[in-house]
Amino acid sequence: MRYLKDYHDGDKASGIYMVKSKTSGVSKNGKPFENVTLQDKSGTIDCKIWDINDPGIDEFDKLDYVDIKGEITSFNNALQLNIRRARKAHEGEYDPADYMPVSSRNIDEMYSELKALIESVQNPSYKALLKAFFVEDEDFVKRFKKSSAAKSVHHGFVGGLLEHTLSVTKMCDYYSKAYPFLKRDLLLTAAMCHDIGKIYELSAFPENDYTDEGNLLGHIVMGSNMVGKKAAKVEGFSKSDLLQLQHCILAHHGKLEFGSPKTPALVEALALSYADDTDAKMETFKEILENNSGNPGWFGFQKFLDGNVRATR
Amino acid sequence: MRYLKDYHDGDKASGIYMVKSKTSGVSKNGKPFENVTLQDKSGTIDCKIWDINDPGIDEFDKLDYVDIKGEITSFNNALQLNIRRARKAHEGEYDPADYMPVSSRNIDEMYSELKALIESVQNPSYKALLKAFFVEDEDFVKRFKKSSAAKSVHHGFVGGLLEHTLSVTKMCDYYSKAYPFLKRDLLLTAAMCHDIGKIYELSAFPENDYTDEGNLLGHIVMGSNMVGKKAAKVEGFSKSDLLQLQHCILAHHGKLEFGSPKTPALVEALALSYADDTDAKMETFKEILENNSGNPGWFGFQKFLDGNVRATR
Amino acid sequence: MRYLKDYHDGDKASGIYMVKSKTSGVSKNGKPFENVTLQDKSGTIDCKIWDINDPGIDEFDKLDYVDIKGEITSFNNALQLNIRRARKAHEGEYDPADYMPVSSRNIDEMYSELKALIESVQNPSYKALLKAFFVEDEDFVKRFKKSSAAKSVHHGFVGGLLEHTLSVTKMCDYYSKAYPFLKRDLLLTAAMCHDIGKIYELSAFPENDYTDEGNLLGHIVMGSNMVGKKAAKVEGFSKSDLLQLQHCILAHHGKLEFGSPKTPALVEALALSYADDTDAKMETFKEILENNSGNPGWFGFQKFLDGNVRATR
Amino acid sequence: MRYLKDYHDGDKASGIYMVKSKTSGVSKNGKPFENVTLQDKSGTIDCKIWDINDPGIDEFDKLDYVDIKGEITSFNNALQLNIRRARKAHEGEYDPADYMPVSSRNIDEMYSELKALIESVQNPSYKALLKAFFVEDEDFVKRFKKSSAAKSVHHGFVGGLLEHTLSVTKMCDYYSKAYPFLKRDLLLTAAMCHDIGKIYELSAFPENDYTDEGNLLGHIVMGSNMVGKKAAKVEGFSKSDLLQLQHCILAHHGKLEFGSPKTPALVEALALSYADDTDAKMETFKEILENNSGNPGWFGFQKFLDGNVRATR
Amino acid sequence: MRYLKDYHDGDKASGIYMVKSKTSGVSKNGKPFENVTLQDKSGTIDCKIWDINDPGIDEFDKLDYVDIKGEITSFNNALQLNIRRARKAHEGEYDPADYMPVSSRNIDEMYSELKALIESVQNPSYKALLKAFFVEDEDFVKRFKKSSAAKSVHHGFVGGLLEHTLSVTKMCDYYSKAYPFLKRDLLLTAAMCHDIGKIYELSAFPENDYTDEGNLLGHIVMGSNMVGKKAAKVEGFSKSDLLQLQHCILAHHGKLEFGSPKTPALVEALALSYADDTDAKMETFKEILENNSGNPGWFGFQKFLDGNVRATR
Amino acid sequence: MRYLKDYHDGDKASGIYMVKSKTSGVSKNGKPFENVTLQDKSGTIDCKIWDINDPGIDEFDKLDYVDIKGEITSFNNALQLNIRRARKAHEGEYDPADYMPVSSRNIDEMYSELKALIESVQNPSYKALLKAFFVEDEDFVKRFKKSSAAKSVHHGFVGGLLEHTLSVTKMCDYYSKAYPFLKRDLLLTAAMCHDIGKIYELSAFPENDYTDEGNLLGHIVMGSNMVGKKAAKVEGFSKSDLLQLQHCILAHHGKLEFGSPKTPALVEALALSYADDTDAKMETFKEILENNSGNPGWFGFQKFLDGNVRATR
Repeated sequence: MRYLKDYHDGDKASGIYMVKSKTSGVSKNGKPFENVTLQDKSGTIDCKIWDINDPGIDEFDKLDYVDIKGEITSFNNALQLNIRRARKAHEGEYDPADYMPVSSRNIDEMYSELKALIESVQNPSYKALLKAFFVEDEDFVKRFKKSSAAKSVHHGFVGGLLEHTLSVTKMCDYYSKAYPFLKRDLLLTAAMCHDIGKIYELSAFPENDYTDEGNLLGHIVMGSNMVGKKAAKVEGFSKSDLLQLQHCILAHHGKLEFGSPKTPALVEALALSYADDTDAKMETFKEILENNSGNPGWFGFQKFLDGNVRATR
Repeated sequence: MRYLKDYHDGDKASGIYMVKSKTSGVSKNGKPFENVTLQDKSGTIDCKIWDINDPGIDEFDKLDYVDIKGEITSFNNALQLNIRRARKAHEGEYDPADYMPVSSRNIDEMYSELKALIESVQNPSYKALLKAFFVEDEDFVKRFKKSSAAKSVHHGFVGGLLEHTLSVTKMCDYYSKAYPFLKRDLLLTAAMCHDIGKIYELSAFPENDYTDEGNLLGHIVMGSNMVGKKAAKVEGFSKSDLLQLQHCILAHHGKLEFGSPKTPALVEALALSYADDTDAKMETFKEILENNSGNPGWFGFQKFLDGNVRATR
Repeated sequence: MRYLKDYHDGDKASGIYMVKSKTSGVSKNGKPFENVTLQDKSGTIDCKIWDINDPGIDEFDKLDYVDIKGEITSFNNALQLNIRRARKAHEGEYDPADYMPVSSRNIDEMYSELKALIESVQNPSYKALLKAFFVEDEDFVKRFKKSSAAKSVHHGFVGGLLEHTLSVTKMCDYYSKAYPFLKRDLLLTAAMCHDIGKIYELSAFPENDYTDEGNLLGHIVMGSNMVGKKAAKVEGFSKSDLLQLQHCILAHHGKLEFGSPKTPALVEALALSYADDTDAKMETFKEILENNSGNPGWFGFQKFLDGNVRATR
Repeated sequence: MRYLKDYHDGDKASGIYMVKSKTSGVSKNGKPFENVTLQDKSGTIDCKIWDINDPGIDEFDKLDYVDIKGEITSFNNALQLNIRRARKAHEGEYDPADYMPVSSRNIDEMYSELKALIESVQNPSYKALLKAFFVEDEDFVKRFKKSSAAKSVHHGFVGGLLEHTLSVTKMCDYYSKAYPFLKRDLLLTAAMCHDIGKIYELSAFPENDYTDEGNLLGHIVMGSNMVGKKAAKVEGFSKSDLLQLQHCILAHHGKLEFGSPKTPALVEALALSYADDTDAKMETFKEILENNSGNPGWFGFQKFLDGNVRATR
Repeated sequence: MRYLKDYHDGDKASGIYMVKSKTSGVSKNGKPFENVTLQDKSGTIDCKIWDINDPGIDEFDKLDYVDIKGEITSFNNALQLNIRRARKAHEGEYDPADYMPVSSRNIDEMYSELKALIESVQNPSYKALLKAFFVEDEDFVKRFKKSSAAKSVHHGFVGGLLEHTLSVTKMCDYYSKAYPFLKRDLLLTAAMCHDIGKIYELSAFPENDYTDEGNLLGHIVMGSNMVGKKAAKVEGFSKSDLLQLQHCILAHHGKLEFGSPKTPALVEALALSYADDTDAKMETFKEILENNSGNPGWFGFQKFLDGNVRATR
Repeated sequence: MRYLKDYHDGDKASGIYMVKSKTSGVSKNGKPFENVTLQDKSGTIDCKIWDINDPGIDEFDKLDYVDIKGEITSFNNALQLNIRRARKAHEGEYDPADYMPVSSRNIDEMYSELKALIESVQNPSYKALLKAFFVEDEDFVKRFKKSSAAKSVHHGFVGGLLEHTLSVTKMCDYYSKAYPFLKRDLLLTAAMCHDIGKIYELSAFPENDYTDEGNLLGHIVMGSNMVGKKAAKVEGFSKSDLLQLQHCILAHHGKLEFGSPKTPALVEALALSYADDTDAKMETFKEILENNSGNPGWFGFQKFLDGNVRATR
């Protein structure tokens, strides 16, 4: 399989790709055509079907897999694919995993790291809760490993939620050494659970969009609820331990205007909000650098930083 | 019993009052004294005990009831009570109800009005949920009737939560007639449940202060959780009905910066947030007018309105 | 007459429509064409004239009425009309009322409701003032009935100002029962007059755009002035009654940053600002729901609510 | 007469001063006393009457003139006057002008400067309007010369409104030379009229407090109204000239959040808002420097500048 | 040479112009073309090359000078140039000065005015510093005269920095007369130096874009540094004089959120920030008026003024 | 020596303490007294001298060391010392180090850790620069070790600047491992230099207040300048390395409104701003916890967190 990112201007294109979107248009001289976006794990490409009545063009829809032929041209410094042939592919002809953006790190390795951190938690209630989620709840584990951490901003890929959660948890582990007054068990438990609501806030790939529940309640409240229900099944889980853990989850966006219904009232909640924010911003900047990897100069105004940025030399 | 608001400069004071606070001081010439605030349902008065070693002055603490004697003087345009005798009263000598600020409206009448509104709800799930709280859950009913709607701002008195809830529900009932596109059942159910988390966010009178749970989770998330748990016991309560109801509760502060983790996404959530805000502001202005009832001029800058106000002529 | 909203992809179009706008373009291959927007009371449609030198295409301008022939196509999920013939229509061939968006409620019925509310005002000065505007001033009455309440946001149609004013006045009437400390006469008079400046702030339909006076002074100051001048003709109108009424008008946007030069200093001014804001937001949400009437899912980010919304199920 | 600012620690004080305020107190050991603030044009001094029943102490009230005797002490680095004798003075014993803060510049000289600037206006309508106010309206002239420009911040003294108006007008005159695209007649007329509403927004000295009209309408709207009424009496005053002038007055605070109901839409309105803001800030800084004239270091955080300041060396 | 602003619809175009930008495109029917922007001192024009393989079209790049032939058409109310022939011009065929926007005022006259103001400074250290920059440092003088004051907003043309600096300095000179408590030497020296960092923050014309140093440090810090280094070479320059001057430069944007690392702590720093802001806003409004010189109505919403504007009548 | 924090109500006090402040007062019954604050490394205590003419009370001033005798009382839940005897102590009687708040960590150990981190930097220019400051510049080293990181908020004690700098540098070291795209040499160099301007922004202990230079320029610009001057002495220090380092220092407050004249444009600048902010907030919360160490409940509203906080259980 040839990945989309490997095509160049002038290439002949052929292969099976996933249809991310499809809309109709009419050219300035009145002729109808179609805009298609194809996707694979390496990225996306804009396509045109100029002759929509060509018998070589099958009907197909968004999220279908199509076997296409065509040629690559360059338009406004971006590549474009003119589709000449399109055939809907059958299940079995392709592996869906090839068509979704995915973490550059190995998912199972990351998961093992996370489980080792669970083992390091001393408080038996917190440890039992973490195992109830990350070891014993198979449906949870399956979804957690595949979820992204966002629809489009940072960590928006398969395994993104795991990668972000692990990175935040490790940073909290560092904090617990640098600032010995932090309660490590509460902090690490909260770090591992802080975004678990996202597995239901966003639908699975390839759709990866907000669910109805996600839009109405949000992952912050959903995560707090999930912890509450799971803790009710852990014997001897004290109300105080639960409230402090739920508070850390509710407050992890740090400020009301960022969607937390409470500001951090415990130093662990404050620490978690810093780890979450730091990791999100580092990953966002990393993705900006990757998207501008060939640009030796300034990349232009970046909304999230309120300024212009460039790669360090 | 003589109410505190009925004393005038020069009066002899005597009777049993509740101790709201008590702190020690030392006068400028080095003599220790005590600052006491006494409370009954009509309000509070600042008191001094200049001779703290007088054998006629018993030991007493915050939240005790004391039988005092003394005289009323005027200090900086406010009354002050110099306590000459103080005796801790026994249970039975006083009725605690006389010592707490209380709604000026009859609590049982208001509760009957609320129950009549519950009867008018058509959706059987919502109706069953409301009855499960407001009719069948005796502990809930008892707490709900006695709660205040706030620690200090608007509706900060026994029955305040009921008064506010009824007023918001009736305004939503008006909205449902004026704007027929509103779903009345969802709107009225949400109105009646919007602040139920406050019965655990604040401790009971006479303390009426934030609980640990209230500080860590807040009444918005607590109310959403209470509805979720109660709905799980109502047969046939659909997930969609629950999510929409919980959303209205979560969004009822209208904006993230006011503590709602989600902004209103449904028109009923928006309507509820307006009814809640309107009633809170009307009551606040009413309390300002009452506190300045003898002032024919301007009352001075009011923080909540960002300006100076006066009574209408 | 066939309304624009009743056309479908593939239809032949013909009939007289109003020209809302007209601009020239040149296609990518260098050929000039024209963009036209046609309007009737049901809405608007984007049109193209690809052959501008065709003898069947008359010259016409913005705000003209033209009799057109052409066909409907679909472009990017929106309908487009390719105009093949265009003839300027003569007065008498069409009824301008068919070409302007108009309230869905009967204007005369609404006006009768408003006049009944005027009769319910007790204060003779306020009642005389209201009659001087809404009964005796024929030019005012004619303009008031036809005005919109806005250029484009809520109530932007013929009769919109009346519909909004009536709705706000009725909500204030509800408030005056729910909150007996409100002075009903002042509140209702202010409600009926709060937006009267809009009849000169915006030009009449079909233009419905800001006038020079509207841009320079704004409807808030203009309305306050109109009341001042009219009150000068009402015998015995006290200065205090006038100042309080003008204050309510000046403060009805509630905050300085929304264009009120004073924040509400009287409880009636505060109540009016809530009624105005509530009605505007309910109507805006209603219009969003109507514009997305076929959309079963989420409508996308709404600037005025700072979030995503959907219809309630 | 000895001015208050000329007293030192240890002096005997005697003379007639105006009573700015008077309140009662009770000392920590239970003895009543009185707090009095005396004022003359040089400033104010805090006073105490420790023996309120002394037969040498007459009854007197706020805004009375009293002939006092006592001694000056130093308390927390500020002077304090212990009053031993107090006699209410009769009209004729004192000249009220000696008891009000007053501009350091000669009022008649400033007024002559202003009238010369009126003569330089070319547009006959604007010139006639200015004369109708500043030359022909005797009551206006009398009030204008005596008004302050503020209750307490900058220019809060007799003649302050004139001093500020003249300074703003001269700066606008400078602008009209530096930026020839400015219409000098409009700009200077607007500059001279921009704050005329203040003569009714604030009551006359020595009270100098917001009037009912000032609180309800504000000087911005009041000034615009005054100009509208006066212009109606000037023959041939065009509507366009009036609207542009009123706009400049309404917009002179520059931003909605500073109380202007419209932002500057004309370049003269923008220029006026800069002249007004510049002069206000220069005078405020000047008053801070004068109030700290003996302080060689930093004066501490200044709210209006969001920082710490000091005198330039 | 015919200036771009003198072409009309239908004209034949020919002459040498500078290439401001050049990008490739593909038309809707699949044909590649090129977008070119040509510039001369009168402005810019959008151009198309429809036949990119025409042998009459030479290769050329951004910032080249090309001798073109083509015709002018009108597209969406703007002129467009269809290029039929293009030849790269040789140095000597054109004068670069003809291709850059330039101040409408004579640069040498303005510079003489500035030097006269330097002569009026009394403090020998400040005078020496100013001469070290504006008289003795030839490289500085050359750059300073040619720099713009901005990339795109106000004063974005050759000589713009000089024009702005002179205007600010003269306004400060006016202030020093109107407010005698200002230290004129400090104020004028700071005014002349306040934006000198811009000569390195922006690259020279025709590029006029942010340099690496400009993006990383900014002209405020760069100007403060330049003054520090130059002052070190002036004998007897006191530390106090330097700190006060550097403070004025650092604080000249007036507020932290506008990029000043310190708010004005000296009255001269405050005055400078007002002069800078006033001149920038006057020039910006002037440029808006010039860009809309044929528009008798309202120009539409202006971001920098948060409102709609028009020319004064 | 008995530390101030070890006194209890009723104790006799005696010993040598430093005078932090001293002001005069007059009691309500007219008697002058003195307010004194004494300080040692354990904290401060409020004191009164009721009999200021007692021959046993020597004259003394702010920053003197005095040998006092008196007794401890309790006033409004805080301890107060009534001074009966006061004698100015001679140098030699006391060790100033006992009277200044000081880091709880060993200063030399921390400094060794910092020097080890310098050794780990690979880039020879950065390493040379760091050594030029932290090893070779003896005056710098002496000041750096003793400076606080703030006047009053976090790390406001001797060694506080070193403690904060080391903590930020170690967190950056952690980041450089967790995010391998970070340039470790630039990041660690910037971390070690980010607050060096503070050694001149604040005067030395015991005064520890803003200097004139600190108020006028601020530690951000001062630190950038110090680096610029020192780098000029390091052979081969490239302009690019210098600009990137200075940028990190200038941008380390993260946002313009926090006093950085530039927002982070390099990912290392962003990382540094997060490390700085995280460490400051962790230390601030730690100090709040220490100041409330005996409080089992909620500590009350904390301005820096916009909410109420408590210790974790």
